[in-house]
Amino acid sequence: MKFWKQPALWAALLISTALPLAAQIGMFSNQQRADITRAWTGERFPDGRPKVPDSVLDRLRDVTAEEAWGTLRGAGYRLQFEGNWKELNGGQRLVGRAVTCVFMPARPDMNAVINDHGKQEGRVGRGQNSWVIDTLVKGDVMVVDLFGKVDGGTIIGDNLGTSIMAKTGTGLVVDGAIRDPSGISEIKGFHVFARAFHPSAIADVTLMGINVPIRIGHATVLPGDIVLSDRDGITFIPAQLAEKVADNAEMTHYRDDWGHEMLREGKYAPGQIDGQWTPQMVEEFNQFLASKGSKLRLTPRER
Amino acid sequence: MKFWKQPALWAALLISTALPLAAQIGMFSNQQRADITRAWTGERFPDGRPKVPDSVLDRLRDVTAEEAWGTLRGAGYRLQFEGNWKELNGGQRLVGRAVTCVFMPARPDMNAVINDHGKQEGRVGRGQNSWVIDTLVKGDVMVVDLFGKVDGGTIIGDNLGTSIMAKTGTGLVVDGAIRDPSGISEIKGFHVFARAFHPSAIADVTLMGINVPIRIGHATVLPGDIVLSDRDGITFIPAQLAEKVADNAEMTHYRDDWGHEMLREGKYAPGQIDGQWTPQMVEEFNQFLASKGSKLRLTPRER
Amino acid sequence: MKFWKQPALWAALLISTALPLAAQIGMFSNQQRADITRAWTGERFPDGRPKVPDSVLDRLRDVTAEEAWGTLRGAGYRLQFEGNWKELNGGQRLVGRAVTCVFMPARPDMNAVINDHGKQEGRVGRGQNSWVIDTLVKGDVMVVDLFGKVDGGTIIGDNLGTSIMAKTGTGLVVDGAIRDPSGISEIKGFHVFARAFHPSAIADVTLMGINVPIRIGHATVLPGDIVLSDRDGITFIPAQLAEKVADNAEMTHYRDDWGHEMLREGKYAPGQIDGQWTPQMVEEFNQFLASKGSKLRLTPRER
Amino acid sequence: MKFWKQPALWAALLISTALPLAAQIGMFSNQQRADITRAWTGERFPDGRPKVPDSVLDRLRDVTAEEAWGTLRGAGYRLQFEGNWKELNGGQRLVGRAVTCVFMPARPDMNAVINDHGKQEGRVGRGQNSWVIDTLVKGDVMVVDLFGKVDGGTIIGDNLGTSIMAKTGTGLVVDGAIRDPSGISEIKGFHVFARAFHPSAIADVTLMGINVPIRIGHATVLPGDIVLSDRDGITFIPAQLAEKVADNAEMTHYRDDWGHEMLREGKYAPGQIDGQWTPQMVEEFNQFLASKGSKLRLTPRER
Amino acid sequence: MKFWKQPALWAALLISTALPLAAQIGMFSNQQRADITRAWTGERFPDGRPKVPDSVLDRLRDVTAEEAWGTLRGAGYRLQFEGNWKELNGGQRLVGRAVTCVFMPARPDMNAVINDHGKQEGRVGRGQNSWVIDTLVKGDVMVVDLFGKVDGGTIIGDNLGTSIMAKTGTGLVVDGAIRDPSGISEIKGFHVFARAFHPSAIADVTLMGINVPIRIGHATVLPGDIVLSDRDGITFIPAQLAEKVADNAEMTHYRDDWGHEMLREGKYAPGQIDGQWTPQMVEEFNQFLASKGSKLRLTPRER
Amino acid sequence: MKFWKQPALWAALLISTALPLAAQIGMFSNQQRADITRAWTGERFPDGRPKVPDSVLDRLRDVTAEEAWGTLRGAGYRLQFEGNWKELNGGQRLVGRAVTCVFMPARPDMNAVINDHGKQEGRVGRGQNSWVIDTLVKGDVMVVDLFGKVDGGTIIGDNLGTSIMAKTGTGLVVDGAIRDPSGISEIKGFHVFARAFHPSAIADVTLMGINVPIRIGHATVLPGDIVLSDRDGITFIPAQLAEKVADNAEMTHYRDDWGHEMLREGKYAPGQIDGQWTPQMVEEFNQFLASKGSKLRLTPRER
Repeated sequence: MKFWKQPALWAALLISTALPLAAQIGMFSNQQRADITRAWTGERFPDGRPKVPDSVLDRLRDVTAEEAWGTLRGAGYRLQFEGNWKELNGGQRLVGRAVTCVFMPARPDMNAVINDHGKQEGRVGRGQNSWVIDTLVKGDVMVVDLFGKVDGGTIIGDNLGTSIMAKTGTGLVVDGAIRDPSGISEIKGFHVFARAFHPSAIADVTLMGINVPIRIGHATVLPGDIVLSDRDGITFIPAQLAEKVADNAEMTHYRDDWGHEMLREGKYAPGQIDGQWTPQMVEEFNQFLASKGSKLRLTPRER
Repeated sequence: MKFWKQPALWAALLISTALPLAAQIGMFSNQQRADITRAWTGERFPDGRPKVPDSVLDRLRDVTAEEAWGTLRGAGYRLQFEGNWKELNGGQRLVGRAVTCVFMPARPDMNAVINDHGKQEGRVGRGQNSWVIDTLVKGDVMVVDLFGKVDGGTIIGDNLGTSIMAKTGTGLVVDGAIRDPSGISEIKGFHVFARAFHPSAIADVTLMGINVPIRIGHATVLPGDIVLSDRDGITFIPAQLAEKVADNAEMTHYRDDWGHEMLREGKYAPGQIDGQWTPQMVEEFNQFLASKGSKLRLTPRER
Repeated sequence: MKFWKQPALWAALLISTALPLAAQIGMFSNQQRADITRAWTGERFPDGRPKVPDSVLDRLRDVTAEEAWGTLRGAGYRLQFEGNWKELNGGQRLVGRAVTCVFMPARPDMNAVINDHGKQEGRVGRGQNSWVIDTLVKGDVMVVDLFGKVDGGTIIGDNLGTSIMAKTGTGLVVDGAIRDPSGISEIKGFHVFARAFHPSAIADVTLMGINVPIRIGHATVLPGDIVLSDRDGITFIPAQLAEKVADNAEMTHYRDDWGHEMLREGKYAPGQIDGQWTPQMVEEFNQFLASKGSKLRLTPRER
Repeated sequence: MKFWKQPALWAALLISTALPLAAQIGMFSNQQRADITRAWTGERFPDGRPKVPDSVLDRLRDVTAEEAWGTLRGAGYRLQFEGNWKELNGGQRLVGRAVTCVFMPARPDMNAVINDHGKQEGRVGRGQNSWVIDTLVKGDVMVVDLFGKVDGGTIIGDNLGTSIMAKTGTGLVVDGAIRDPSGISEIKGFHVFARAFHPSAIADVTLMGINVPIRIGHATVLPGDIVLSDRDGITFIPAQLAEKVADNAEMTHYRDDWGHEMLREGKYAPGQIDGQWTPQMVEEFNQFLASKGSKLRLTPRER
Repeated sequence: MKFWKQPALWAALLISTALPLAAQIGMFSNQQRADITRAWTGERFPDGRPKVPDSVLDRLRDVTAEEAWGTLRGAGYRLQFEGNWKELNGGQRLVGRAVTCVFMPARPDMNAVINDHGKQEGRVGRGQNSWVIDTLVKGDVMVVDLFGKVDGGTIIGDNLGTSIMAKTGTGLVVDGAIRDPSGISEIKGFHVFARAFHPSAIADVTLMGINVPIRIGHATVLPGDIVLSDRDGITFIPAQLAEKVADNAEMTHYRDDWGHEMLREGKYAPGQIDGQWTPQMVEEFNQFLASKGSKLRLTPRER
Repeated sequence: MKFWKQPALWAALLISTALPLAAQIGMFSNQQRADITRAWTGERFPDGRPKVPDSVLDRLRDVTAEEAWGTLRGAGYRLQFEGNWKELNGGQRLVGRAVTCVFMPARPDMNAVINDHGKQEGRVGRGQNSWVIDTLVKGDVMVVDLFGKVDGGTIIGDNLGTSIMAKTGTGLVVDGAIRDPSGISEIKGFHVFARAFHPSAIADVTLMGINVPIRIGHATVLPGDIVLSDRDGITFIPAQLAEKVADNAEMTHYRDDWGHEMLREGKYAPGQIDGQWTPQMVEEFNQFLASKGSKLRLTPRER
């Protein structure tokens, strides 16, 4: 019997489509979103996306990619960094919660379905890219998988850029292009990472999902991951590891300060500072920590 | 109120997870699958995937990429061809119904969720790649989005290749690599298109979906698309256009036969054969069709 | 009146073919140059190159690549932008009339012919690259097709750069390299776009034509096209479209100002601003235009 | 006698410029063609293209790329080889006289001019590519600069391929793509070198010249150059050097035969065979030549 | 005091240069060679290079890259495979002991030193590439690091190829090019892996060492490593692991035979065959081994 | 007889390993180092590395890559420039004496040998990269061949960077990556050229030699070469040519000053300034030299 004619299944489908399914578009329900990010046990947005607290975001603002890399690697996450970007309005680090979305090469049949979904979900505006922007809130960073497309892969111009900045106060990461870099560079504080700039309008792509797992180069990004930029690259920190990254970085900053001081004084050689510390060195470092008013202490086995 | 604490929504979720959700893994229900391919109005597999009839597959076996391209382009599908493959066991055209799957760079949190899903869905075997193979039936072609990964991006070796061939009688398309090309080339009739060969085992990837929309280079592939290979490239024909492609190709074959004959005889110049045919030429061609026993006729406006 | 019917100009051309043919070198007469650019019906240089008025150049100085792209695309010109440059002395936009030239890989037989032509045409200096520079006048931008050559593809160093700047007051675009970027960056206001920097001298190339159609990446450039730079890319505007680009950009600037204002005020959503405007929005915008003292008005069907 | 001083040829050229200029299209007159190839002092086609005798073509059929390279390099031509091709119907070497043509990215203004020229010159057929084919004669090899374009850069399909084969009996070289490799591979003896295969139709390009200097990768090709293929590459031999290449290759073949014999016998070491030959070795080789019935003799200074 | 004037050190140097230092050239003594390959404890060639027995080479002839990869990976060698080659005279596997050599971009000062060394060491012939060939013996495979150079990176033509084949009976691996692929493909059984074919002669490189550690793409190759080719790639097996690779492959062949049989019979699913075997499966497999006359037995923990 | 059992050779080896072999690691003795750089006849460091005087380094600080290129090319050194870098802390030119080192892909057998050598040579610290840093002195520039590796190819972070700066006062060139560009950019005056930035720690590589010939892209670098940076590229000047480069640059600076003056005055055309100077021009230039207080004079044949 044909699938199309299976009344029981259709009934189930009708029931589930009657539920309010925010941010669904092509393929993901809130339940799937919460499920795929279940390692996060804290607060969530209504659509199931992890909501790392603002206080943790603040502590991440002076964490380098190297510091994050060490903690992530230690936890088994080796592919969370992606380099090779063009940057606009750099200077400070970009920090925020990822709102992910993915586009695919358009085909008329699939694009028609997505546009119908958008209409059913009450999405406003001609462009599918603006549907994503409409979902943004303060502290979000829109992260877009446009599969590296340049000509016709321009996710925003300065109008949409102004809108994103007004809603998030952060920036944008796009594995694709933007248009009007001149105009966008005039949006104060709007920090953009793209693969290229191109004057064309976005074309021949279909939005397949919002807040679904996406691929940005070598990295898989989940909704609610913390986006952390550094010179020339972006680290996508799983929500459940964000606080640990912040903790470890604080310790590292103190350790580097002490190491630089020792190197300048010539008290220890680079190989010693970068190598296994002796108990004597750990002891001296802990005295340094105390002298700085820090409550942290290094245990010998950690270094 | 936190999402985690919304009992009503959880209840809805529990209900829907109680449904038999074949081939779900990361992100797609049968209903979503039928929805995204709704342009196809014929028979479907139980999981919602379009099932183009065998008779149409047979007629497509001597259709070239150029013939398919013309029909697809005319219908607004300009991005359904992808070249640049390494081919094993070529010779005949690969024709079959796409079973799609997509892998993403692995991260421990996400991979754990997928493995749990696999366990819940009763999937057998250690490797996520074998979960896809377990779903294959006669006439299917497994199409794998491995985002071009080579080292550790090897979807199968000769064991799994033997299994695919036993189940489908066709071949494999992978935007990634295979291992053991020597062994695989000995599986008679097993027609493989990959980006590279590499001896490593598959590693550091997670299966995110089976029979979901995937991207193979420039093309978007939907489950149930017809895979049609030609020298150096693959065309992914939307299910609803497969019959039309076969119809048009039959006409084209007759037209080419006649054109070649005219060129050999020097009766018409290449520019005339490739250009707009005069009513006189259309008339002569229709006489040729009749002489061949064909019931097709060209109307002047078609050429 | 059409160029084709301007007897005076034809007379001038016929006369000039009897003269030693300026800017001819390998392949183009003044008459061929006027012919290939016949869509331009305004003033021309003696060698047939279109001469867009200075007043239009001035109006283009604050037009972005996106604004130009919209007008060009609307007129059927989709390939007039080229990105991926190294830039020296950026800051302001580069605007000027293209003097094109094309080099090819050298072969002794062809190079000897070109050198003889140069001698017959009274060209001074050892280097074929300086022949092009000798033809430049105020407001010109030299655009060089060096087929992406880097080692030995260095069109100028700081001596020739100084000379170009003295003659044109603008800059240079080269699909190839320059040498001595340190020296060139000290030539105040000399705005350069090249693919790379290399210390070698130009070598193993032959100048095949001056003010002929050339290819710069994806774009075809005709002599007299307007070169317009923006952040990270160059647009080559056909002479006959330059004024229209300026007109449309003026309207767009007002429209963007109003759109940004509306977004800041939250009066309209991004999707509305980027989408089809309602008659109400058009009316409000026209009031805005009036309030700014502009004589332009938007008609409903334009947006 | 120098071409420049051949009154008869000049007369012919002057006459021909009074005629409707065949093979002109965008930019080249017969006189310019004869001028740029003036190093060739033998017979020419009516349009000024050098016509290397059939007897020389025949002698080149078993010359390798390495043998041609040695002679060309010795004469100062270092850039006449180009590799990285996809080949159809290989097996024998492709040998013939180049009919060159160059396409550029299309723009409406320029394309309209070219189409008008075509009409004025009486060219038949909708496609500019067929204009080139209409000029081909026996022994020609069509060499096409399509600037590496793949999608929409398909110079021929099997209809036009059949036509080229009927006219030339040789093959095709295209720095771009072809469509329908399946069909083309069935045209017996039609030897094709292309960069890629793609099912699309040629699009968005304009034919800028026939029998003008073109660039194929690193090489400049002039009309009338001899196209000589070898495994994985094409050498473009200037017409005036074709006979010398054939002469030198004959000597090399004998030298290699003798060298291989000496190596097999262990009489001389590889370093000696590849190094400077002693007078004793030259003497032995000349005896070998005599024994083979050859009239050639090596003089000591040549090796 | 200047180094140049340190008599004691000079004395020591003179003593060491008085030793017979075969295959030294730029940088490696026999002692260094034996030292860097000290993990090999078996027989060595006079210059210190490991000499894996012929009996082991024979057993490796039907080992695939995948089988070798498994054993190497298990031993901590993850980078011993390199793909992306052009192959001549394929068909059988290339197996032999690596004679390594490395070239670097030439500079006159360094090249003069190397040529003096060659003269002092009595090396014959003008070309440094022939110095390597002079050292080859039966069963060697010459492996050349030419840093991917193509034009001027042609290590051999058919003369030197004939010589290599006469001495080794095997083939050649070059991370660079060869010339005269037509001629070389006629040397029966001479199996060549190169990056490209080019007609130029080798130029602008200096031979820096023979039988020193070299880099071929991702892999480090030591002298005496076993070169093992498979479809599309080369594995460089450390000498000390060659026998273990052969042992493991024998077991794998039997295991695959049994697995294929089980799959064909449908007795076990692919996931089971590729997954952890049950004790029952191990038992059945060991019965299979016995039935084949093999003395090998699988223990449960191995699978 | 096996090599392993040759007592006489072993005795010789033991003697030579008893010598103090500074900076040896994998493959190079002091004697080999002095030998390969024998074109330098001035002072040397204890390990045989050429020591170009500080006074010459000072004179090179305002020499451009173009000026160095001219002198090097004239002396037959055509491959000493390498571009395509990411630069940190630019502004002034990087000038210093190269301390070279080379890494290769790691394999356990080779890496164990190198670590043993390090231990025997008393090298401190866990990381092989720090061994190189320990050898640096004032005025050195560490030049690292990491074969372009990015992930795991990070030669230093800010700790080691601080140490290098303290020892050399210059910078670093690495054909690979660095980590922590944020931290490194805060080390005042520490001028870095790398291929990329990456947060990973260095991994899977083995240090094969210190102060041996290395390859950086197209260039061969010898220990003691002078590293000279310019905008976007590095020139490696052989020690014996450093003074000549400084001499020639001084003359060129005066010549450019005069040329620019003449161009500004319009006294001579660019072709004349760039071409062969007339005796009159030489005379005027020498007067200019005298007026500037220079003792240099141009002789007519030099220009």
